[in-house]
Amino acid sequence: MIVKTEYKTLSQPFHPEYGSVIGNPVVAYEEYGKREGPVIFITHGGISSHHAAGRYHRDDPVPGFWDAIIGPGKPIDTNRFRVLSANSLGSMFGSTSPLSINPDTEKHYGPDFPKITLIDMVRFHRAFLDEMGVQRLFMMAGPSMGALQTLQMAALFPSFVGSAVAVAVAGRMTPYGMCMHHFMCHALQMDPGFNGGWYEIGEPLLAMRYIHQMVRVYYVSEGIVKQLFWDTVPEGKDAQEQRSRNVKRYLLDGLEEQIEGRDPNCYITILNAINTYDLGRDLAGDYEKGVNRIQCPVLLMNISSDAEFPPYWGQEVADVLNRKLTGQAKMTVIDSPWGHLGCVQEGALLGHHITQFIKELC
Amino acid sequence: MIVKTEYKTLSQPFHPEYGSVIGNPVVAYEEYGKREGPVIFITHGGISSHHAAGRYHRDDPVPGFWDAIIGPGKPIDTNRFRVLSANSLGSMFGSTSPLSINPDTEKHYGPDFPKITLIDMVRFHRAFLDEMGVQRLFMMAGPSMGALQTLQMAALFPSFVGSAVAVAVAGRMTPYGMCMHHFMCHALQMDPGFNGGWYEIGEPLLAMRYIHQMVRVYYVSEGIVKQLFWDTVPEGKDAQEQRSRNVKRYLLDGLEEQIEGRDPNCYITILNAINTYDLGRDLAGDYEKGVNRIQCPVLLMNISSDAEFPPYWGQEVADVLNRKLTGQAKMTVIDSPWGHLGCVQEGALLGHHITQFIKELC
Repeated sequence: MIVKTEYKTLSQPFHPEYGSVIGNPVVAYEEYGKREGPVIFITHGGISSHHAAGRYHRDDPVPGFWDAIIGPGKPIDTNRFRVLSANSLGSMFGSTSPLSINPDTEKHYGPDFPKITLIDMVRFHRAFLDEMGVQRLFMMAGPSMGALQTLQMAALFPSFVGSAVAVAVAGRMTPYGMCMHHFMCHALQMDPGFNGGWYEIGEPLLAMRYIHQMVRVYYVSEGIVKQLFWDTVPEGKDAQEQRSRNVKRYLLDGLEEQIEGRDPNCYITILNAINTYDLGRDLAGDYEKGVNRIQCPVLLMNISSDAEFPPYWGQEVADVLNRKLTGQAKMTVIDSPWGHLGCVQEGALLGHHITQFIKELC
Repeated sequence: MIVKTEYKTLSQPFHPEYGSVIGNPVVAYEEYGKREGPVIFITHGGISSHHAAGRYHRDDPVPGFWDAIIGPGKPIDTNRFRVLSANSLGSMFGSTSPLSINPDTEKHYGPDFPKITLIDMVRFHRAFLDEMGVQRLFMMAGPSMGALQTLQMAALFPSFVGSAVAVAVAGRMTPYGMCMHHFMCHALQMDPGFNGGWYEIGEPLLAMRYIHQMVRVYYVSEGIVKQLFWDTVPEGKDAQEQRSRNVKRYLLDGLEEQIEGRDPNCYITILNAINTYDLGRDLAGDYEKGVNRIQCPVLLMNISSDAEFPPYWGQEVADVLNRKLTGQAKMTVIDSPWGHLGCVQEGALLGHHITQFIKELC
């Protein structure tokens, strides 16, 4: 499946919760599948793009993050559904963000980009879907930040969301995840090259190298590092030195390519937005009431070894929903050593559960 | 118990495995308890000091790291035992290290300090104990790096070590721990202020701030961050914002004080030494043979939530030993949300098991 990113300029300025106005808001998105089919809306992880499926050209080595799940004959079947996948407000992959031109100053926003919340991101996507002529979603689905946005959309607009699939999820941002986000933001802001956010765009900060090394540790698990870089070295003289070299290479190989174009202001904007996530926040902190606005069937999946979203966070959401309406939420633990990255790495397993979920819906 | 650090200059130069000679080697140590009692030797965690018990003066706010375990009437009873706790070779707390004066150049070693291994650290301590007139240890015990040193000592000098207590332990350095060590070393070495190791001593590098924030995340667990900074905030308006502020404060409060005097070359020396640890390394990688050199009763304790030393690593050592001699090793999982730091934070629980272990030995 060959895909491309398109851009939609919204007809109205966007008003973030905490004030300010964003003029000429743009949404970068991809569209796959049957134009007239029921719509499935896909959202992405915090530091990922909206490239969910397919390849940009025939020789493109890496497909979209849920390519195992989305495509012709796949669990989210593009022969049957119209699939839209949109980049989030604040993200560096083409939607309006700190990299965009501020119409007031005709320069890029940089650190002056308005503070946004996870609710803002969801309202931004709702405006996009309205302008795309989508009356109702058959389903909304996403991993990580995309999972949080999925539940938040279903809570804010219950009649708009027909069903929800949330992978690596919680009903409010988790404390351990907040730790990592604050660490990342602080590292970027303290970097000598950060310059209050007015750094040279495209020149990677040293802090970005540190962050992406920690991403490779924290977002997987002990088990996967052992499996990939340890168990593969047979016992013998210098085996342990070889393992140590493997682990070092794991941290550093491809790091420069990975951080290329990664924008610090966009990271800070997105990570702070995720930290505001709490389904009860807009109801004076009444969490249970916040969760219970969700009306649709929900499939929650958490990865057994995920440090950021341990399965009990998904279970908490399922319990609240099922106390109100037995069977509304289905909670599944994906047994995997992939840690948080299991939300994209375990595509086949996730796809299996999504197929079942869609069958039961129809 | 008021204690002080003393210094012992060894009578012979020290020869690290990988070559070079360290002249005038010095060991910083503390001694507690009954001078004529059986000797218990304590070793410390990688970035900790040898200050294991007591306080330096009456108003000293923080006691030694195992103060819950070592003292009069405590599990390691100073009314009964002579307790020696020594700083490791390469550590910044007074033993010979990159901060020491190189007799050849009359300047501090800095990055020219010889490469050392975990075996070197243990041989260094053995030389120290010999010169202190210790014929045989009743017990050796330590957390984290100290636990690795304990098993390594018992493997290298089986008749010298009467019993071993190893907390947060493995028989070879773990892959996830190696990740963290490589991250730390790389961050320090890439820091613009590092200057190839010839930085201004005492001026903290920015990388040290990043490292110690990650220490506060990686070396605990999700559960403890939740318990301390999350569950303590009652539900309500702005609760989530308060939690986010708590988590940020957790990362930053006291950070400057914590990194004061932390020496990058010492960190790099120690962390690389830990990465060489493998009980089979000096036997051409024959791990089982390496472990099976240990002759004494062994108590292994791992913390249930430890990401760096998950309990199966301690169990692996116990299994090897018990296959040879049933009951030689006792493996205990300490159920705690404290993660790796449980090896010092769970003093009361650890002490309970140590008391039992000593009873069974006598």
